[in-house]
Amino acid sequence: MKHYRDLAPSIRTIMTPGPVEVDPRVLRAMSLPILGQFDPEFTDIMNEMMEMLRLLFQTNNQWAFPIDGSSRSGIEAVLTSLIEPGDRVLIPIYGRFGNLLAEISERCGAEVLTMEQEWGSVFETDDIIAKIRETSPKLVAIVHGETSTGRMQPLAGIGAACREVEALFVVDAVATIGGTQVLTDEWMIDAVIGGTQKCLSVPSGMAPITYNSRAEAKLKRRKRVERGLRDASNEAIPEGVIIRSNYFDLSQLQDYWSPLRLNHHTEATSMLYALREGVRLVLQEGLDQRFARHQLHGEALVAGLEAMGLTLFGDPACKLPMVTCIHIPDGVDGEAVRSMLLLDFGIEIASSFGPLKGKIWRIGTMGFSGSKRNVLLTLGALEACMLRQGFKAAVGKAVQAAMDTYNRRNDNE
Amino acid sequence: MKHYRDLAPSIRTIMTPGPVEVDPRVLRAMSLPILGQFDPEFTDIMNEMMEMLRLLFQTNNQWAFPIDGSSRSGIEAVLTSLIEPGDRVLIPIYGRFGNLLAEISERCGAEVLTMEQEWGSVFETDDIIAKIRETSPKLVAIVHGETSTGRMQPLAGIGAACREVEALFVVDAVATIGGTQVLTDEWMIDAVIGGTQKCLSVPSGMAPITYNSRAEAKLKRRKRVERGLRDASNEAIPEGVIIRSNYFDLSQLQDYWSPLRLNHHTEATSMLYALREGVRLVLQEGLDQRFARHQLHGEALVAGLEAMGLTLFGDPACKLPMVTCIHIPDGVDGEAVRSMLLLDFGIEIASSFGPLKGKIWRIGTMGFSGSKRNVLLTLGALEACMLRQGFKAAVGKAVQAAMDTYNRRNDNE
Repeated sequence: MKHYRDLAPSIRTIMTPGPVEVDPRVLRAMSLPILGQFDPEFTDIMNEMMEMLRLLFQTNNQWAFPIDGSSRSGIEAVLTSLIEPGDRVLIPIYGRFGNLLAEISERCGAEVLTMEQEWGSVFETDDIIAKIRETSPKLVAIVHGETSTGRMQPLAGIGAACREVEALFVVDAVATIGGTQVLTDEWMIDAVIGGTQKCLSVPSGMAPITYNSRAEAKLKRRKRVERGLRDASNEAIPEGVIIRSNYFDLSQLQDYWSPLRLNHHTEATSMLYALREGVRLVLQEGLDQRFARHQLHGEALVAGLEAMGLTLFGDPACKLPMVTCIHIPDGVDGEAVRSMLLLDFGIEIASSFGPLKGKIWRIGTMGFSGSKRNVLLTLGALEACMLRQGFKAAVGKAVQAAMDTYNRRNDNE
Repeated sequence: MKHYRDLAPSIRTIMTPGPVEVDPRVLRAMSLPILGQFDPEFTDIMNEMMEMLRLLFQTNNQWAFPIDGSSRSGIEAVLTSLIEPGDRVLIPIYGRFGNLLAEISERCGAEVLTMEQEWGSVFETDDIIAKIRETSPKLVAIVHGETSTGRMQPLAGIGAACREVEALFVVDAVATIGGTQVLTDEWMIDAVIGGTQKCLSVPSGMAPITYNSRAEAKLKRRKRVERGLRDASNEAIPEGVIIRSNYFDLSQLQDYWSPLRLNHHTEATSMLYALREGVRLVLQEGLDQRFARHQLHGEALVAGLEAMGLTLFGDPACKLPMVTCIHIPDGVDGEAVRSMLLLDFGIEIASSFGPLKGKIWRIGTMGFSGSKRNVLLTLGALEACMLRQGFKAAVGKAVQAAMDTYNRRNDNE
């Protein structure tokens, strides 16, 4: 039998738009012994998790719990539960993850209408609102923070327009939750999906979601209790079309997360421990302080990159605070720089997708990875790699510019 | 802001049919720092994981990788990818998890045919084979180890019958993988789903699967590359019906797990570390030794329970080695015993579902929970609780009988 060695991952400074470094306190939480899923101590943790997620999502919704799977599992759970085959769904797309919303909606059997905006900018909300009034969709789904292009779509006003036409409003806040304002109730969002491996600094493997009573009404129409758990009290056949997934059926999941505790999957204990610890740290830091921290490190990074002589990609008016996109300069091999950064300096930055592949780099300053230390080390290492690749960097300027940004912030406080 | 305390779960001896205690070495692996998903060090771990899973599943299949989600996520990924709406699917049901296979298949749009066997027994394989020949289904799905009743279905011969009628043969080995023989290739199983939180002693949150080239041929007919990742080389529209899920689309997942590394979800890093460590420990122990250990602790537990004066549930000829079901004696409050065991002794055993709810207890001896220490402690504690509940237990006999079983085993070696 082949000998498999002990796991010994190298230490990395992970400056991508996710996954990012995990807070050591979250790693520690995952090493705690597990509890059984119906142990009262564990169901107490589940209830506490729901309470903490309501604070994270800034909502009074009854339902806020994680889906066991990566971020897109949360997206698919929401869309497959809320879209009935044949429903008209409007999706404004301004990057790769808008395409994912369309992909998933198509597979749910929706009649998908898309609006497309050039990658690097976002929509005027008035244009989205006009389209909603014009097309009267059953559901509107949009990405809040589009990591593929580093842009953030303003959302205020869209929820009200959805209510005019009785559409549900679904927001992918995978990249933004815990890093910048996501005002679930104030923006009248009916269902929000967050991500763990970005601003929360928890490993991928869970997707916190929340939804309100408008969304729940749709679930109730489609609810069918699992075969083998039905009895005289709950065997009713639904009025709506049955949800196409068992794993992602929110009407079943909410019974599992409610005092009913109707058996569904076996909750992913250690990931729940991790999410609880990650959200606990967010609440301990304070949402406003945390958003300000994400803003600050993004600004310091931008100052450094521009001082080095690099050019940012995209419309600065809608820049995602915790993701910075850079044009790869002519004559520079983007992948060679990324590889040198990773292998010589242990620092990871990202490339991009589709039309932007090979054109831009993306640097994240998310969650635990968003620190002064990481920003300064990354700028210094990137400058060295750029020089090595023959790029005429303004030598020594980048780190100084970032330090100036940090000092100005301190002076103002 | 409310203060949320540090997580501090109580220590439990978890003697349920899953989730069970996690090996401390697996817990430790989860506390390691993460790597980015396209870091060459991480993709090496992914490749190694596939290799280790092939050994676990005793298969030469090319494809063996985990689905990010609980065990039923693996079941749904296999069924939703292999069942086209309208396909006839045959499901022999002998407990709750057979019902789950039918539930998921129905939601996939299958024409579901079921055979039902009284809970507590299993099918004659000849009856299954006759039904396959009679109904010519496109797919046959069956549970190998039915934890709801503690039974194990013999599988040899069914695969050959499936090939006669060109059906795919899918096996839910969630409860048995790593605890007893699951001969993927020898039994001609086209797709197998394993569980982590049972005999592998890894937390819930991942589901290892494997499938062969017959299953892959079905995927190829339905393959559609994700919107936003398509280009001239891969934009072909499939001949078959597109898979209804993006998250569970095995044709996309195998591109992510292949050298193509076509982006899909963000792999659940810490759960993958856990699964790698769990499977590493299985391979280190040796499959045959591990299966023998599961058999031994099941036998010792049975000897103890019978010596105490309790009666086992179900046909002993098809008992699942690592799950023991007991009739709750008349006049004993089953939930009061379970609660006393948990709260006074820190030991968890399980109740059951549907027709068996309140009728039987189920005790697991799976993975790291399957140890002499745990069996002896559980028998002693259960005896004390039974006495407390007024049951006339044969006092002091249970632990002695289990110790005799262990001693006989030692004498024979």
